[in-house]
Amino acid sequence: MSDGRKLGILVLHGPNLNLLGTREVAVYGHTRLEEINRALEARAEAHGVRMEIVQSNHEGELIDAIHRARDWAHGIIINPAAYTHTSVALRDALAAVGLPAVEVHLSNVHAREPFRHRSLTAPVVWGQIVGFGPLGYLLALDALVDRLTKHAT
Amino acid sequence: MSDGRKLGILVLHGPNLNLLGTREVAVYGHTRLEEINRALEARAEAHGVRMEIVQSNHEGELIDAIHRARDWAHGIIINPAAYTHTSVALRDALAAVGLPAVEVHLSNVHAREPFRHRSLTAPVVWGQIVGFGPLGYLLALDALVDRLTKHAT
Amino acid sequence: MSDGRKLGILVLHGPNLNLLGTREVAVYGHTRLEEINRALEARAEAHGVRMEIVQSNHEGELIDAIHRARDWAHGIIINPAAYTHTSVALRDALAAVGLPAVEVHLSNVHAREPFRHRSLTAPVVWGQIVGFGPLGYLLALDALVDRLTKHAT
Amino acid sequence: MSDGRKLGILVLHGPNLNLLGTREVAVYGHTRLEEINRALEARAEAHGVRMEIVQSNHEGELIDAIHRARDWAHGIIINPAAYTHTSVALRDALAAVGLPAVEVHLSNVHAREPFRHRSLTAPVVWGQIVGFGPLGYLLALDALVDRLTKHAT
Amino acid sequence: MSDGRKLGILVLHGPNLNLLGTREVAVYGHTRLEEINRALEARAEAHGVRMEIVQSNHEGELIDAIHRARDWAHGIIINPAAYTHTSVALRDALAAVGLPAVEVHLSNVHAREPFRHRSLTAPVVWGQIVGFGPLGYLLALDALVDRLTKHAT
Amino acid sequence: MSDGRKLGILVLHGPNLNLLGTREVAVYGHTRLEEINRALEARAEAHGVRMEIVQSNHEGELIDAIHRARDWAHGIIINPAAYTHTSVALRDALAAVGLPAVEVHLSNVHAREPFRHRSLTAPVVWGQIVGFGPLGYLLALDALVDRLTKHAT
Amino acid sequence: MSDGRKLGILVLHGPNLNLLGTREVAVYGHTRLEEINRALEARAEAHGVRMEIVQSNHEGELIDAIHRARDWAHGIIINPAAYTHTSVALRDALAAVGLPAVEVHLSNVHAREPFRHRSLTAPVVWGQIVGFGPLGYLLALDALVDRLTKHAT
Amino acid sequence: MSDGRKLGILVLHGPNLNLLGTREVAVYGHTRLEEINRALEARAEAHGVRMEIVQSNHEGELIDAIHRARDWAHGIIINPAAYTHTSVALRDALAAVGLPAVEVHLSNVHAREPFRHRSLTAPVVWGQIVGFGPLGYLLALDALVDRLTKHAT
Amino acid sequence: MSDGRKLGILVLHGPNLNLLGTREVAVYGHTRLEEINRALEARAEAHGVRMEIVQSNHEGELIDAIHRARDWAHGIIINPAAYTHTSVALRDALAAVGLPAVEVHLSNVHAREPFRHRSLTAPVVWGQIVGFGPLGYLLALDALVDRLTKHAT
Amino acid sequence: MSDGRKLGILVLHGPNLNLLGTREVAVYGHTRLEEINRALEARAEAHGVRMEIVQSNHEGELIDAIHRARDWAHGIIINPAAYTHTSVALRDALAAVGLPAVEVHLSNVHAREPFRHRSLTAPVVWGQIVGFGPLGYLLALDALVDRLTKHAT
Amino acid sequence: MSDGRKLGILVLHGPNLNLLGTREVAVYGHTRLEEINRALEARAEAHGVRMEIVQSNHEGELIDAIHRARDWAHGIIINPAAYTHTSVALRDALAAVGLPAVEVHLSNVHAREPFRHRSLTAPVVWGQIVGFGPLGYLLALDALVDRLTKHAT
Amino acid sequence: MSDGRKLGILVLHGPNLNLLGTREVAVYGHTRLEEINRALEARAEAHGVRMEIVQSNHEGELIDAIHRARDWAHGIIINPAAYTHTSVALRDALAAVGLPAVEVHLSNVHAREPFRHRSLTAPVVWGQIVGFGPLGYLLALDALVDRLTKHAT
Repeated sequence: MSDGRKLGILVLHGPNLNLLGTREVAVYGHTRLEEINRALEARAEAHGVRMEIVQSNHEGELIDAIHRARDWAHGIIINPAAYTHTSVALRDALAAVGLPAVEVHLSNVHAREPFRHRSLTAPVVWGQIVGFGPLGYLLALDALVDRLTKHAT
Repeated sequence: MSDGRKLGILVLHGPNLNLLGTREVAVYGHTRLEEINRALEARAEAHGVRMEIVQSNHEGELIDAIHRARDWAHGIIINPAAYTHTSVALRDALAAVGLPAVEVHLSNVHAREPFRHRSLTAPVVWGQIVGFGPLGYLLALDALVDRLTKHAT
Repeated sequence: MSDGRKLGILVLHGPNLNLLGTREVAVYGHTRLEEINRALEARAEAHGVRMEIVQSNHEGELIDAIHRARDWAHGIIINPAAYTHTSVALRDALAAVGLPAVEVHLSNVHAREPFRHRSLTAPVVWGQIVGFGPLGYLLALDALVDRLTKHAT
Repeated sequence: MSDGRKLGILVLHGPNLNLLGTREVAVYGHTRLEEINRALEARAEAHGVRMEIVQSNHEGELIDAIHRARDWAHGIIINPAAYTHTSVALRDALAAVGLPAVEVHLSNVHAREPFRHRSLTAPVVWGQIVGFGPLGYLLALDALVDRLTKHAT
Repeated sequence: MSDGRKLGILVLHGPNLNLLGTREVAVYGHTRLEEINRALEARAEAHGVRMEIVQSNHEGELIDAIHRARDWAHGIIINPAAYTHTSVALRDALAAVGLPAVEVHLSNVHAREPFRHRSLTAPVVWGQIVGFGPLGYLLALDALVDRLTKHAT
Repeated sequence: MSDGRKLGILVLHGPNLNLLGTREVAVYGHTRLEEINRALEARAEAHGVRMEIVQSNHEGELIDAIHRARDWAHGIIINPAAYTHTSVALRDALAAVGLPAVEVHLSNVHAREPFRHRSLTAPVVWGQIVGFGPLGYLLALDALVDRLTKHAT
Repeated sequence: MSDGRKLGILVLHGPNLNLLGTREVAVYGHTRLEEINRALEARAEAHGVRMEIVQSNHEGELIDAIHRARDWAHGIIINPAAYTHTSVALRDALAAVGLPAVEVHLSNVHAREPFRHRSLTAPVVWGQIVGFGPLGYLLALDALVDRLTKHAT
Repeated sequence: MSDGRKLGILVLHGPNLNLLGTREVAVYGHTRLEEINRALEARAEAHGVRMEIVQSNHEGELIDAIHRARDWAHGIIINPAAYTHTSVALRDALAAVGLPAVEVHLSNVHAREPFRHRSLTAPVVWGQIVGFGPLGYLLALDALVDRLTKHAT
Repeated sequence: MSDGRKLGILVLHGPNLNLLGTREVAVYGHTRLEEINRALEARAEAHGVRMEIVQSNHEGELIDAIHRARDWAHGIIINPAAYTHTSVALRDALAAVGLPAVEVHLSNVHAREPFRHRSLTAPVVWGQIVGFGPLGYLLALDALVDRLTKHAT
Repeated sequence: MSDGRKLGILVLHGPNLNLLGTREVAVYGHTRLEEINRALEARAEAHGVRMEIVQSNHEGELIDAIHRARDWAHGIIINPAAYTHTSVALRDALAAVGLPAVEVHLSNVHAREPFRHRSLTAPVVWGQIVGFGPLGYLLALDALVDRLTKHAT
Repeated sequence: MSDGRKLGILVLHGPNLNLLGTREVAVYGHTRLEEINRALEARAEAHGVRMEIVQSNHEGELIDAIHRARDWAHGIIINPAAYTHTSVALRDALAAVGLPAVEVHLSNVHAREPFRHRSLTAPVVWGQIVGFGPLGYLLALDALVDRLTKHAT
Repeated sequence: MSDGRKLGILVLHGPNLNLLGTREVAVYGHTRLEEINRALEARAEAHGVRMEIVQSNHEGELIDAIHRARDWAHGIIINPAAYTHTSVALRDALAAVGLPAVEVHLSNVHAREPFRHRSLTAPVVWGQIVGFGPLGYLLALDALVDRLTKHAT
């Protein structure tokens, strides 16, 4: 799955996350996506982890990125955003590549509309982190690194 | 959101609407998409409105177009077609950009299959126009112009 | 169905609409029903259309008015208000007289309580206009006139 | 409940039945309500039964008529039409007066839209006759007379 | 479908009806099945109708009897009893032979357990008679004869 | 909303309540509506309250009465009876006039048929009193007076 | 069930009610539980009633208290709070002891989350008082005393 | 729709099928997609059929391919994979082009998670082949050729 | 399970299929069951397969035939017709004998009534072929022979 | 119901139980039906009970056997197997004969597929024994004998 | 799990069972809990089994008792009463200790309110005995002893 | 709410978690609760946080502990275990005290039984961490400390 010399982690941001910090700030806060990415990269560097970050509004591109991860990554952090609730294809992609994945949601989806309570991807990921805002991504990274270094890849 | 000199309106046609007038004419009628577009452009010109029209079968491209509209448009006319019933991502995109939007459906979706009765986008648009055939687009344009000129953008 | 010399259009306002502009203004706005009616009459006159306007809180009176319309009207504009969600009888009345009808809702019912999402009358009307405030009635009138003059009654 | 000298039977026709024979003939047939009424009156006379026939589009008037029946009638034939599916009030009225009632439907409601499959009144009537067209009323009358003469009121 | 000289009517009694009058008399009354059959035969004779009566607890035998009816009968009276609520096969058999059928229920199924409210056979019969006790069979016979003699077979 | 000199309270009795004490006494008891009304009037007089009592089987008349209450009343006591479970129009009327309202049910609706468990009006009233028989009306009156005198109208 | 000399009434406050007045005041108001208890005790004394008040966050303790009430109480006032919606055990306890009980809710549960609309205890109590704030307890006490003194225990 | 000289058949593989044989082999088996494609091409050649094979993880690309098929193909074999259960857009595309289509699933979807039991595309295809592994594609091809050669295009 | 010298395949036709070609031809086509059987036998002979064909309207007889198949057959082709949707017993029989089975449906059940969308037998068969008319049986035979000869029984 | 000299008990085994011990042993165990029957007969003899054992895959035969039991048996032990979940007819038969019956299931149906959790027969039997394997039949026999000897028939 | 010298069995009685014989005797009979316990102890002694009996209205105490059983018991007999339908915690406790357990219900829960039909504990016990009154406990004891002595602990 | 000198954090372990590491290790892993607690305490010390850890199988005790936390704690980490899915009372307790709370689940509840997918507490906590095993508690602690130190209490 990888050369194993350096841990590789793919970070996937789903649809509309590119607008973060500029839209519906009451729900999603004021942090912009680049700020989250920079924080993630800093932490990744501290962990000695190679990280690739992809944002796309296209379900297919997210799936393609997951497929490519088989060649270089040891774990996946994914915020599927709206596709969480509608995409069996993303779920199947995550299950297919078999890498440990962490699902992140910025807002507390369980406190919002009922259709946001169901996650199609949750049953196939290792763990799910819901509602801590940008901090959730860092917790996800810590968790993945903890697992990947402990279990030795 | 725009320079405000001329009203800008984005028109979005969702999946399969490119086949309009050539498919299932019993449901959708014989008018082709280009005819609708030409009628819209004529009316836009009469209103002194700048209009951009996008048709795509790709959910992601529709979302991208909505995002871009933040830079130049004051309103959106969208016929999400099949994505009406399945796309939380489109809904979130419309909510994110915050422009007044009008949802248009050519056929009376409430007289068709039950899965067409639910619109995921309807709760986040300004208004919804269902079932008037091509005329619906023109009503949507009139409505948007009425609102945008009255409220002065 | 009519003498055909002048287009006749029945406008029906359902229960509680007589209180418009004085109740729940956060939801329904400040425009009073008489203002809507005056705007409609002005537009009808401009179109050369004979218009009759009825408001009733009684389901049966609304049905009776629909039945009488067979004798003089060519189209119906109806805001069934609360009866939208509960009245099979209104639905059957509309289906029975067979006149093209437009269903209007002032507020965006899809953004309100779930029981307001279902319309029993929607499947039997020509088209539905949801959420534009008083403007919706004028759009409905334009639409009906467009259809009735094009198809010649 | 009655003087008992002559059997009295109330016939109630619900909303839109006044249009019978002139509307949706594919569903309801060409017989007009007056023809049904005349046939009923002829049969009632043959049975020596006093009959009163009421048609109303007003739920409240149908309830009032049921209440009045306590003073003179021994049985009720009711086609609640659209109110079959929505009126708890009619159901309670029938249960309250306690007269044996027969529910009649001209069309086979079970072969139509799902919301027509449920009858709120059915659980409180003596029997239900569904789908025989105008003949159903005559069967209902025969049934009521059979019961009322056998059990002696 | 028949020689046409004499009307032929098949009467089908479903499962457990052979115990009629001996079981759950609070629900089904004291009349035994033979009494019902004798009353039916008397009425049939009065109408000049040839009648065959079958009772079976076997779904397959009821279906076989319906199939055979194509060779001699012009109509069917069926009380599917428990199979009303569970047998798609009976429904398909009735639809397949295409003879006008009347569904009879002795008790008012709508006033009993919820699973008895749904009839799988109702949508494919001509009419349904519910809740008049044994009288229901005679009404069914009258109705079938009325139809078969009027429409000339 | 009123001159404020004397508290005004509207009491509304919904459909079939005019038969109280004469129908289904096992469920509703033997007290007649007039007795309840007399007890209410006595208590109102003791409280120095002006009271108007309306009973109607017509949904529209109940709505009209609620509308008129805006001119003279400070509170509403309503037993919507069957309309509790089916009338969005009554709910909207109560919400529209904005007077504090108390919903009363004579019987314990939660111990009856499932369709009686849901109240469409409950979410828009101040409080609900269920199941105490005629006493419930007096409790409702006491509660309203307590509130209206405490909060000074 | 009791010596009958003095009426005994048990008041039960369910989980989290000990925090009343200090939590979610927008929903529950500023009155503290002790204030409610003091008001109840004053009213009880005025009625000549012996009252015991129990608050517990433990379902089992509430049940135990209900069981003990058989030895001394003639009625129960219970606000089961959260257990209203989840406790079959409380329901069975109330049904088991067979004392007349009144269920009280401070807030209008029907205007809150859907899971608060269903009460498991409601079907087994005498009556339910919903949404009057602290006043509801006093109404409950008045109602119980009215019943217990009228029917003589 | 085509020149008719040589039968043209489009084969569409939906999302994640590119990973076939390398992922979840317990569910999908060890055959890789290329092997299936080669087998299909061999069979197509034997049948004298022109075949085009498209795999995509992008819903929009699958739709585009279906649209293009109108210009050259006489039939479609489609394994919509995850989109089977979520894509109204694919369904509409298949219905729009009106070519006979066969839906293929490698695994027995009915023996898997409930959300895989519903196919949105099934109602608009000619036939569906579920659960035979790679063999299903060949059966689909045989079926299409049988139909297209028999009915002469 | 068999002598293994010659492949044995049981073909089961469920209820009402004996009427094929004579009933509801709009749904099921004009081919009679004997024609399908003859085509199957010809193909079986070509494959060198011993075939037994059973049609029954009796659920029990279909089960018995499946049980007997353990003694001589290597595979089963079954069109359970109406029993598809209602028979847990057939499902259990198929699961019990453990022979590879193919479920065939002549019509596209997914385009018909909702109750025909669910198959109780589908989860326990090897594969399902839906909607190709009589051709489906031949595809089923080809599939079974392919599997049984490849895997050598 | 019987001569009363010797207790008679009917044991009914439903569909597919004849294959017991040879099918799905992981679910049903290795004991064959004859072994269960022999154990039952031994215990019956010890109890001095006359026992008749019937196994059938035909719903109708099971019903017939229940009907016949009225002439000689005092109780019924029934494992309806698959018919547990689908047969209203069996339920009605058990209710009709009115003999105390015990429903037995070998496996723990509540730990299996959801459709096996519902028993249509359970509400009309005396008791139900689920999940003890063959031992369940003996417990059922002990229970019936205990009841029949205590209550003296 | 135990010393193995003497079989140990824990008997758990859930909430309100302490009132047995004194409450709702129409449902639960007149036998008091002590009588059941005495009968159980007598039978336990006859079997040479050490038995501990716990009754509690507190969910937590029932769980604690189950946990303690790991130290001394070989099996559990539990009547979870109301907690059957609401307690995931009890279910998890039973699953956690892994001792064979028998669930007992005095009344036939399947003939009572729908919410009593679902058992959360049933899927994790060995077997369930429903509806035999006090006898059910003895059957449960016999079953457990049979299993524990046969399989030798 | 606290003296503010040292951060205080309450850790709550719900029912059956005391058995951790000794029960269902395939689901919950081999780590014992003490090990988790020790790891938490070490981390708390490193963060300079005062921590109190409570485990209880009693819903009421968990609520009491939450109430007490108002006096000393600044945040709560809670694994409600089985009560996650059934306890409105715990939810209300968390909402009442208003402290930021993190909900932790050891296993991926979304990959287990459907009744474990719904969390009643999730909508009122700050964030939820699902499925990382014991690591989840440490992530929760890190998150709480991050928030409490950043926002200064």
